[in-house]
Amino acid sequence: MSHDGQPLHTVLRSASKEVTLGHDQRFCLIGERINPTGRRIFQEQLRNGDMSAIERDVIAQVEGGADVLDVNMGVPLTDEPDLLARAIRMVQDLTDLPVCIDSSVVEALEAGLSAYQGRALVNSVTAEDDRLAAILPLVKRYDAAIIALPNDHDEIPMEADKRLDLTAKIVRVATEEYGIAKADIVIDPLAMPIGADTSTSLVTFETMRRISDEHGLNMTCGASNTSFGMPDRHTLGAAWLPMAMTSGLTSAIMDTRTPKIVEAVKAADVFLNHDEWGMAWIAAHRAKATASA
Amino acid sequence: MSHDGQPLHTVLRSASKEVTLGHDQRFCLIGERINPTGRRIFQEQLRNGDMSAIERDVIAQVEGGADVLDVNMGVPLTDEPDLLARAIRMVQDLTDLPVCIDSSVVEALEAGLSAYQGRALVNSVTAEDDRLAAILPLVKRYDAAIIALPNDHDEIPMEADKRLDLTAKIVRVATEEYGIAKADIVIDPLAMPIGADTSTSLVTFETMRRISDEHGLNMTCGASNTSFGMPDRHTLGAAWLPMAMTSGLTSAIMDTRTPKIVEAVKAADVFLNHDEWGMAWIAAHRAKATASA
Repeated sequence: MSHDGQPLHTVLRSASKEVTLGHDQRFCLIGERINPTGRRIFQEQLRNGDMSAIERDVIAQVEGGADVLDVNMGVPLTDEPDLLARAIRMVQDLTDLPVCIDSSVVEALEAGLSAYQGRALVNSVTAEDDRLAAILPLVKRYDAAIIALPNDHDEIPMEADKRLDLTAKIVRVATEEYGIAKADIVIDPLAMPIGADTSTSLVTFETMRRISDEHGLNMTCGASNTSFGMPDRHTLGAAWLPMAMTSGLTSAIMDTRTPKIVEAVKAADVFLNHDEWGMAWIAAHRAKATASA
Repeated sequence: MSHDGQPLHTVLRSASKEVTLGHDQRFCLIGERINPTGRRIFQEQLRNGDMSAIERDVIAQVEGGADVLDVNMGVPLTDEPDLLARAIRMVQDLTDLPVCIDSSVVEALEAGLSAYQGRALVNSVTAEDDRLAAILPLVKRYDAAIIALPNDHDEIPMEADKRLDLTAKIVRVATEEYGIAKADIVIDPLAMPIGADTSTSLVTFETMRRISDEHGLNMTCGASNTSFGMPDRHTLGAAWLPMAMTSGLTSAIMDTRTPKIVEAVKAADVFLNHDEWGMAWIAAHRAKATASA
């Protein structure tokens, strides 16, 4: 199979702003920070109804250059649907960036979608039949886009072939059974920590290239993950993203507070011809020079 | 055509040290600095017989992490063969790194090869018949390896197809007519400044990928070139090299004095599984931490 058509465009919208993912578009930075996972103080605050940290996180991710904000409210022992809906409304009051609604709980995804004004990205569904059946109807009903992971039964396949098979299954089910457009399926090619297995990124790059060549789908993934446990993570992240972009990755869920990594993405956009005449690159350099003058 | 065999190894040697280029090897950094092009003071010094700058340049490139040193003595109005032979001997006295003998003058290449003790890389030949006929016999006679540029008649082809055609011609002529091993042909896929044409790197990446897939050949190129005329060249260089490595580049001629770019290459080596268990990465981090403690 080979994808030869026009580039697929995944269009996300807030009430007033549109962001497009595409192989002919600038890389889309999804700010990952509005997420209590691994943040004990933030979790405690949310449990006590204190949502003030969200404001700081939104500001920091936007200032760092986020195009879209991931919002996750997965705190144990809370009413996650209610919390996520409130967080979504709060984020929409703070910024005009589109939102990625992030939960493993179907009811929370629905509450988030219901609260959101615009066209959201839903994070995420796997290739398991029951997950597809629970989440894809929501995606269709709310006219959203969906991040889909090519794994099933909680196992992450270590071979690109298997990831491609599950991607094909997801595309078939989403388009044929639920009427979701191919352009609204964003595959997460599964990036794993290099510290655990030094061949893992090669598999991910191959998966990206084949998903791009064979399906033309847009892709996103958790980029920070790849350097987990290694020293000098910023330098590793600043190399990994240009490598992934060359392999076909069109977006990443990442912490935009690290200039070194954000600048590496912007540099890669120049070389991939996503920054016409390098105007954005040159303008950013001028703005920085002016700010420090 | 598809290359399915064992990775080709281009083996370079000084009197006491061996360096191997290969798709399964760590990226090979060829220090570019021992070259008077664009350096007026250095040119003037060389014209006056003062070769002291070479010592400083060798030390700086070696300290920065060079694996091989490019030596070019192209100064107008000098006896280039004599100057290059003397520079090669001097470099061999200063370091045990293998050398890349760089000249557009056939007599200078021969003088350099004759002075060199080891297995050199010759920089370079084009696909023009008269250049191939003049340089390949020298490469064979001195048992060297050769950098070959897929361009002819002083025109750099802007299409990957044409670069692939010329690569195939070079391989055919070198192996069939001159008995040079495929492993000893290192193709320069032709990297051009992004500032002049923002689609140029896409052509170069495609050329790299196809040369890697179809021929399995090793490749090198002048990496600094790509960011010429743009602001923040170090950040651009630190993104371009990991992108090129992902596309199949196995070596670059570059200025190793820029830690940001050298570290980006080392990070990309980790993700390409050329740094087993990330041991070199971790060791370099420890050494840096110790040095700054």
